[in-house]
Amino acid sequence: MSRGAGGASMAGPVVDKGADFANYFCTYAFLYHQKEMLSDSVRMDAYHASIFKNTKHFKNKIVLDVGTGSGILAIWAAQAGAKKVYAVEATKMAEHARQLAAGNGVQDIVEVIEGSIEDVELPEMVDVIISEWMGYFLIRESMFDSVIKARDRWLKPTGVMYPSHARMWVAPIRSGLGKAKLQDYENVMVDWDSFIQDTNDYYGVNMSVLTKPFQEEQKKYYLQTALWNNLHPSQIIGAPFIAKEFDCLTASLKDAASVHSSFQVELWEGQLKLSGFAGWFDVQFKGRAEDPADQIIELTTSPSAEKSTHWGQQVFLLQPPLDYECGNIIEGQLDITRAKDNHRLMDLKFTHRLIRSRDANGVLAPFTCSDFYLE
Amino acid sequence: MSRGAGGASMAGPVVDKGADFANYFCTYAFLYHQKEMLSDSVRMDAYHASIFKNTKHFKNKIVLDVGTGSGILAIWAAQAGAKKVYAVEATKMAEHARQLAAGNGVQDIVEVIEGSIEDVELPEMVDVIISEWMGYFLIRESMFDSVIKARDRWLKPTGVMYPSHARMWVAPIRSGLGKAKLQDYENVMVDWDSFIQDTNDYYGVNMSVLTKPFQEEQKKYYLQTALWNNLHPSQIIGAPFIAKEFDCLTASLKDAASVHSSFQVELWEGQLKLSGFAGWFDVQFKGRAEDPADQIIELTTSPSAEKSTHWGQQVFLLQPPLDYECGNIIEGQLDITRAKDNHRLMDLKFTHRLIRSRDANGVLAPFTCSDFYLE
Repeated sequence: MSRGAGGASMAGPVVDKGADFANYFCTYAFLYHQKEMLSDSVRMDAYHASIFKNTKHFKNKIVLDVGTGSGILAIWAAQAGAKKVYAVEATKMAEHARQLAAGNGVQDIVEVIEGSIEDVELPEMVDVIISEWMGYFLIRESMFDSVIKARDRWLKPTGVMYPSHARMWVAPIRSGLGKAKLQDYENVMVDWDSFIQDTNDYYGVNMSVLTKPFQEEQKKYYLQTALWNNLHPSQIIGAPFIAKEFDCLTASLKDAASVHSSFQVELWEGQLKLSGFAGWFDVQFKGRAEDPADQIIELTTSPSAEKSTHWGQQVFLLQPPLDYECGNIIEGQLDITRAKDNHRLMDLKFTHRLIRSRDANGVLAPFTCSDFYLE
Repeated sequence: MSRGAGGASMAGPVVDKGADFANYFCTYAFLYHQKEMLSDSVRMDAYHASIFKNTKHFKNKIVLDVGTGSGILAIWAAQAGAKKVYAVEATKMAEHARQLAAGNGVQDIVEVIEGSIEDVELPEMVDVIISEWMGYFLIRESMFDSVIKARDRWLKPTGVMYPSHARMWVAPIRSGLGKAKLQDYENVMVDWDSFIQDTNDYYGVNMSVLTKPFQEEQKKYYLQTALWNNLHPSQIIGAPFIAKEFDCLTASLKDAASVHSSFQVELWEGQLKLSGFAGWFDVQFKGRAEDPADQIIELTTSPSAEKSTHWGQQVFLLQPPLDYECGNIIEGQLDITRAKDNHRLMDLKFTHRLIRSRDANGVLAPFTCSDFYLE
């Protein structure tokens, strides 16, 4: 449905820049949203420590901050001794970043550049690329693409990536949300039925041909759209597995474009309901092999009883949930590709089956496919 | 902030079509949203009656439906005897409209065309243009522009507009919402102050240069953005006045682009607080002077104890509200122009003062300006 001219993305189809700006970047132009991210202490502590526990990577170095937002990472890099920091920001937030740099006395070090990183020209190659590019379940927003492109173009051969590594995690979970969502969906469909009746009776138009498309639209909305959730660790009912790992120094656009991961997880005792799956991520700041960090820092968004992040976890609920017995195994495959009409959103497919002990004599259940949307 | 290529709007600045689609049209691609409009019985009854009480305007006529959505108006026009109905829809909803026409046996009459009305080529001129183009406070969405362009291009000199007339109404009101919004705003600012303190203490960055822009952003959001509300008639505290009238047959793009209206309203007894203003609209289906409707139908979205519409009223709250005495007069001017960065949204300015009886000896209070955003 995208129309008009636009820039070509190296990763695939043509992206309409106007639509992309309206759909995506505009959010980051609000200070309220910046504040939300700046108030996320897990995020802030990790980036702060990654810089100030590893000042050797910043002292007298040239730094590029991709998507600087309010400019916090660029300012920290300057405070840690950087010789120069190029802070690139696509939205009008760039003006605020410039003010903030000046307000903190680093205006001579931090050069804020308003523009998209793909279009920007820097006068020199950089020693460090720092960026907070992670979206929900790591890859939503597809901002890693921009970091990869910046790396390929501007990072010196000896350069360091901050963060250096990233991982996508998935775990089977139990959750009460599925039941509530199913109820919402059913209520909407009951309401639709009386709407069809009324429109026919009062206005002489039979709308029943729209029932199936409406059902699909509502099913997608209520049952197949990933839910933001702050899970308690006790909701995890089997060992989390890594669905994808990235070495930020070597990952390609192709690597970032999709996920294909098979899994086999034994379900833990004490629970008897598999509601679905949760996805989250962590990133590490390790420096590079020849120039490792003095202190490795990790930022994790995994379920935690103490700490939550603005990313939370993304929850994918099976309808209906699966009853299982202790020792059963959930096995299958997770495939993630980008949404056709918006490269920053994702389509997910869980192909799964439960291996029960009573099937041990060779009779395995068929696989079931569950489609989800990370929107 | 808009970037990339786009089509030129006759009314003014260049519009980025990709961004416009992402910001605006996308909403109408959801059946859920169509259902909301189709369930608005004030809207449905008025359009239904306008057609079926005036079938002479449709029988054996060529009709154009601008922005057909689910296709309901086009189908009604066909049921009323139209020879041909061109139903133009910019979104994928066009497919559903086509199905719905077929499901109601009028696929040979109703020709659904997917595209924006500005780009569409019709094989002939039309006798009637019907359209449900009204946004909040009538002019939000600026869809009337598209209807005007369609009229200038496709309506026969003897043609009829459905609706034929439209009016924007404004009235002084009392409301409890202002207090709640002010409290929300103040809470956010208190929270901001501790955020500034924490960011300075824990992360060594002084964010106070952002306080003013944050305050402005939040003020706009909580205090200056028009609120959707379903007012009770008793909340109106002075005679509503017409801020703008359109004859849909003759209105120009320039007419539709702005509103400049002065007012002088005596405040009614029994109330002592002027909280702000409310805006709504009505439209009439009168046919044209030489070819008047058999029965004039009106669709009004004014405050009503019995009937509400999905449009409701738009409320603009003064901070602080004004205390008045019986017989005081609120006078001033309302200026509405289009938002700079989105031609479908509006900037409003109420320039107002209260004329108190005690000022009768010549001392008048100065005017106060209150800016609002219809988003």
